[in-house]
Amino acid sequence: MAVASTGRYRGRANILLATFEEGTTAAGVFTLSKCPSAPVLWSKAQLLKNGGIARALVVNAGNSNAFTGYRGDEEAQKTAAAAAEVMGCSQQEVMLASTGVIGEILDTAPICNLLPSLYANRSTKITEEDAISICTTDTYAKAASLSAILDGHEVILSGFAKGSGMIAPNMATMLGFIFTNAAISGAVVTAILKDSVDRSFNCITVDSDTSTSDTIFVFATGKNANPDMITDVADPRLDDFKNKLSAICLNLAHQVVRDGEGATKFVTIQVNGAENASAAKVIAMSIANSPLMKTAIAGEDPNWGRLIMAVGKAGEQANRDKIAIWIGKQHVAQNGLVRAEYEESLAAEHMKGQNVNFTIDVGIALGSSTVWTCDLTHGYIDINADYRS
Amino acid sequence: MAVASTGRYRGRANILLATFEEGTTAAGVFTLSKCPSAPVLWSKAQLLKNGGIARALVVNAGNSNAFTGYRGDEEAQKTAAAAAEVMGCSQQEVMLASTGVIGEILDTAPICNLLPSLYANRSTKITEEDAISICTTDTYAKAASLSAILDGHEVILSGFAKGSGMIAPNMATMLGFIFTNAAISGAVVTAILKDSVDRSFNCITVDSDTSTSDTIFVFATGKNANPDMITDVADPRLDDFKNKLSAICLNLAHQVVRDGEGATKFVTIQVNGAENASAAKVIAMSIANSPLMKTAIAGEDPNWGRLIMAVGKAGEQANRDKIAIWIGKQHVAQNGLVRAEYEESLAAEHMKGQNVNFTIDVGIALGSSTVWTCDLTHGYIDINADYRS
Repeated sequence: MAVASTGRYRGRANILLATFEEGTTAAGVFTLSKCPSAPVLWSKAQLLKNGGIARALVVNAGNSNAFTGYRGDEEAQKTAAAAAEVMGCSQQEVMLASTGVIGEILDTAPICNLLPSLYANRSTKITEEDAISICTTDTYAKAASLSAILDGHEVILSGFAKGSGMIAPNMATMLGFIFTNAAISGAVVTAILKDSVDRSFNCITVDSDTSTSDTIFVFATGKNANPDMITDVADPRLDDFKNKLSAICLNLAHQVVRDGEGATKFVTIQVNGAENASAAKVIAMSIANSPLMKTAIAGEDPNWGRLIMAVGKAGEQANRDKIAIWIGKQHVAQNGLVRAEYEESLAAEHMKGQNVNFTIDVGIALGSSTVWTCDLTHGYIDINADYRS
Repeated sequence: MAVASTGRYRGRANILLATFEEGTTAAGVFTLSKCPSAPVLWSKAQLLKNGGIARALVVNAGNSNAFTGYRGDEEAQKTAAAAAEVMGCSQQEVMLASTGVIGEILDTAPICNLLPSLYANRSTKITEEDAISICTTDTYAKAASLSAILDGHEVILSGFAKGSGMIAPNMATMLGFIFTNAAISGAVVTAILKDSVDRSFNCITVDSDTSTSDTIFVFATGKNANPDMITDVADPRLDDFKNKLSAICLNLAHQVVRDGEGATKFVTIQVNGAENASAAKVIAMSIANSPLMKTAIAGEDPNWGRLIMAVGKAGEQANRDKIAIWIGKQHVAQNGLVRAEYEESLAAEHMKGQNVNFTIDVGIALGSSTVWTCDLTHGYIDINADYRS
């Protein structure tokens, strides 16, 4: 595996090429938007056709090639063809991801022209410059690395991601790329990735807005790792790898929330006692996406009345007379009533910190879910209410 | 019908009593919150028990008596009992509505004590003071009045409403009360109200947050109006009344949006070409509630890429290659692509106005829906990120 980045976008690189050894398996999880970008449609289709392999990944930041109709599809195909020529592989083995403005035609000729020099200059070391090359409004690079034991061999997982608003001022998207030398079949890596994403990237929200370009890839080269490729997702030898992949996804997802547009707080919302896990997640996301809850957090106000509002509007079962609330370690309410012992000054103290935690029990059954979000501040309005420039 | 208001809340009245002649029918539409307030639970239960009649309405602003458990239920019952004593009616005939802070116990003794003097001072004329007495963060009173021809007789419909955020800084709710002298059965007025609310109050959003106290009542006294009470919702003599009730509801709903917390723009979103009307409304609400769309409107930026994002995230069918967009009268995109003739300066000019219109055709079938919202500005953050005081 090797990587290189280049370009001159706001004074830094914005085009990335990653190349993979023959035999590399690949898995992708993509936006559920009904208007996905051309690179999303391209990559999804290739993984379906080729059964989960890849030789190259090309990423550009600044223009997401979304809502560009047949012209967008043509430009995506041109990029894949150019990368395939440089690599000496099939264009079906080239994955694409883009992030940036929606609706503007992307002329990929400049990207295609840069691919030979990127290929020549690629390195097995991922630099901060590479991680920054996929960013838009992000204020810092987001990367994580862990090792896992797989069938007695140490394997490495390294990844980087971008994301700040689901769509930034003018741009778009959360992207994440994870590279490993583990030897795991495409089908198995796909199953593991989906499970990890469900409990990480799918449990965060900055502003409830879903990009047309969201993409998380895993590339598994199989080099200098377990000699016996794993082809069964239930294989117990995978346990540590699964845990470490989940940990990397969660780490990157948390970094995205911490860098949320205008964010000043990292907020953890745990819902217990719901009808089931999925109901718990609906309630937790209702709280996490509530503008009134997010502004109360920005104001460091332990306004738990708004928590109740958000529980109530979620549409899932809640027992009014059994609801319990904690802010940090302060037990605010139980049996549907504020506790006599509750001291608001202690809850207010907790909310002054950078990490804010809410726990709500809705008193129905045993379903639980945890999601992460940030506050809604003047900074978000500043970033997003400016005319595109 | 007569009304009086009093109280000393931020220097103005915050308690309202309305009284109705014997034989007055009543209909209510209430919040869908799973954590409704005690007054909502009380009023719903009485209308069910009494079959749709009322002699009195008591409203207080400042404390919503929501998330107050059995204590809240007791306080609601006390208020109804006190009003029933003053009126010489059954407490089942007393409707209640409250708006304000969630989660604080409401001591209703001061309200109960004021009811006899309110009763003594009531007047058949609704004043601006009365309309203001139900407000919280509203910046102006919201009222509307129309006459309708019902079975050859002129009848009057007069209403007032409150609402600014679904929950204001510290407080809550959208409330609306409509009074008419028409003679219509409780079941029929309920059916007509539900239909009107579906196309008015249920088609607006300020911040996507649903109050625990939302309530719309209609009271129909039957005095000096059509002598023959209407008891069939399909009766063609009702046509003009239905239209006028819808018009009043829409007028009051639009006033609520125009007074949205921090709002500077009144935004109309029309979605055409959806699978059906309900899919169209889901898409329109996805646009209306998108923080990125609302901040773009605040910034007067014709950022139609965000429209596409919001269409895509709605989860309803959309044909990427048939989507068309208009901003005001500017035809921005067709067949899933920006038009060559599109002049952004003209769309930007439209967005500088106080009334902003978006029309989107998603290219599937014939479902249409129109919803109304406002922009998301620094003013919203100012109002809602302050610590409760």
